[in-house]
Amino acid sequence: MKLLRVGTAGSERPALLDAGGTLRDLSDLVTDIDGVLLADDAALGRIRSAAAAGELPALDADGLRVGPPVARVGKVVCIGLNYHDHARETGAEPPTEPVIFFKAADTVVGPNDTVLVPRGSVKTDWEVELAVVIGRTARYLESDEEALAHVAGYAVAHDVSEREFQIERGGTWDKGKNCETFNPLGPWLVTADEVPDPQALSLRLWVNGELKQDGTTAEQIFPVAEVVRYVSRFMTLYPGDVINTGTPAGVALGRPEPKPFLRAGDVVELEIEGLGRQRQVLADA
Amino acid sequence: MKLLRVGTAGSERPALLDAGGTLRDLSDLVTDIDGVLLADDAALGRIRSAAAAGELPALDADGLRVGPPVARVGKVVCIGLNYHDHARETGAEPPTEPVIFFKAADTVVGPNDTVLVPRGSVKTDWEVELAVVIGRTARYLESDEEALAHVAGYAVAHDVSEREFQIERGGTWDKGKNCETFNPLGPWLVTADEVPDPQALSLRLWVNGELKQDGTTAEQIFPVAEVVRYVSRFMTLYPGDVINTGTPAGVALGRPEPKPFLRAGDVVELEIEGLGRQRQVLADA
Repeated sequence: MKLLRVGTAGSERPALLDAGGTLRDLSDLVTDIDGVLLADDAALGRIRSAAAAGELPALDADGLRVGPPVARVGKVVCIGLNYHDHARETGAEPPTEPVIFFKAADTVVGPNDTVLVPRGSVKTDWEVELAVVIGRTARYLESDEEALAHVAGYAVAHDVSEREFQIERGGTWDKGKNCETFNPLGPWLVTADEVPDPQALSLRLWVNGELKQDGTTAEQIFPVAEVVRYVSRFMTLYPGDVINTGTPAGVALGRPEPKPFLRAGDVVELEIEGLGRQRQVLADA
Repeated sequence: MKLLRVGTAGSERPALLDAGGTLRDLSDLVTDIDGVLLADDAALGRIRSAAAAGELPALDADGLRVGPPVARVGKVVCIGLNYHDHARETGAEPPTEPVIFFKAADTVVGPNDTVLVPRGSVKTDWEVELAVVIGRTARYLESDEEALAHVAGYAVAHDVSEREFQIERGGTWDKGKNCETFNPLGPWLVTADEVPDPQALSLRLWVNGELKQDGTTAEQIFPVAEVVRYVSRFMTLYPGDVINTGTPAGVALGRPEPKPFLRAGDVVELEIEGLGRQRQVLADA
């Protein structure tokens, strides 16, 4: 299923995009799409049955804003340098175990919302990423199968990054990853049953219409199952938590000088095969 | 005011500890102590008036668990190496600007709850810290006065840390800071009006009765006002967010070999002048 949330920010209603491309209203069935719903197999089953029986009312998609597909995200765990080609372009050694950093849940916005270039920023950069949304509480997982069973679904994430804040201002990467609006998510949460192989997805990102990133999750150094298993040894993952699993090559940071960092007015579009497409216009904070 | 939350985990009720040391029930006045309340001057005023008028019913404190004093914490921003003496003991250069890392809000537990030593951990360490609780949305603050006006109050935080995960496993410090139960908070949120000088508080921590940390916030490299102002340039702070402002010298990491890291059965007690005392028993995860 493709689950999403539509409406003005803070007042989104739950919806489903059906196989025919029609938007269906879920608000008679569930109050929202969040960790509580994703952990509730019975409620997800009721949505599935109602969709199959054609019982869900159509919604007029025209002019409707799309919000992030998960409400009340708990935490956003990010995996750094997780693509062979991206590690090479940044000049970093490929990590021997997953690199973890954090984005606060309050950085999550809708897939087409405005992204703000922070005040004083000269190095705002793009990163298309496969986001994993957790559906069951995960601690000390032991096998890849067990790890994948804790995944509710997948979505497109834009891990917007300010490289000066991240790398040149002391401390951890978190300083350049948590500016407001820095994590567009969506448009859809595609349930895990519809993503048979998360290691065979193409990812693309364009800036002002020019293709900048063109990768595949086959290049991930640590695949999704290993990432979920690994993270669960260091922290407990809860339903509604998100893991951004890293970006392929092609970011501004990896290009020759003068590096083409983002400015107000730029348009970023990104997509992952089967998970939909985002489009953001940059503006000054 | 000393605001707190008492009861079983997940079902705490809001309370006030009055000047005479009597616990008072706030549940007729407010639903909970959270970011919404902390941003609501009128509601805080009603609590203050009711307390002054002696209208709040007493609560029997006997056997009542104390929860974290803030519900639905948004994010926990942590400042690293923020005491001159702690920077020296870890062998690090004092930072030229604040070091930022993150703890997920789901690591927050009550001040006397069990702290779990992660599986496989051999370097679980203690850190007493002054926690700043945000009361107003803060972005791009310019002056120290403005920064302090965005602080709702202060609390004791225990920034439990796994040093091998933090330092020796690749990536950022976040890997050793986010294990479950790693952020005891409380017992109270002491409102900012009752903490006239946050740079003149003594902090102490004992392990199994032996004094290990004995510091003062006067030793902070970046004082509270500067920390809040600085952080607000890199991310937006919301009511109910928490900033852990760093730890003074005396952690296990800074001691000669064999370093006395924590194990199941150890008892950690910590206190900050005027902000109350915590006591945790360690157990295996």
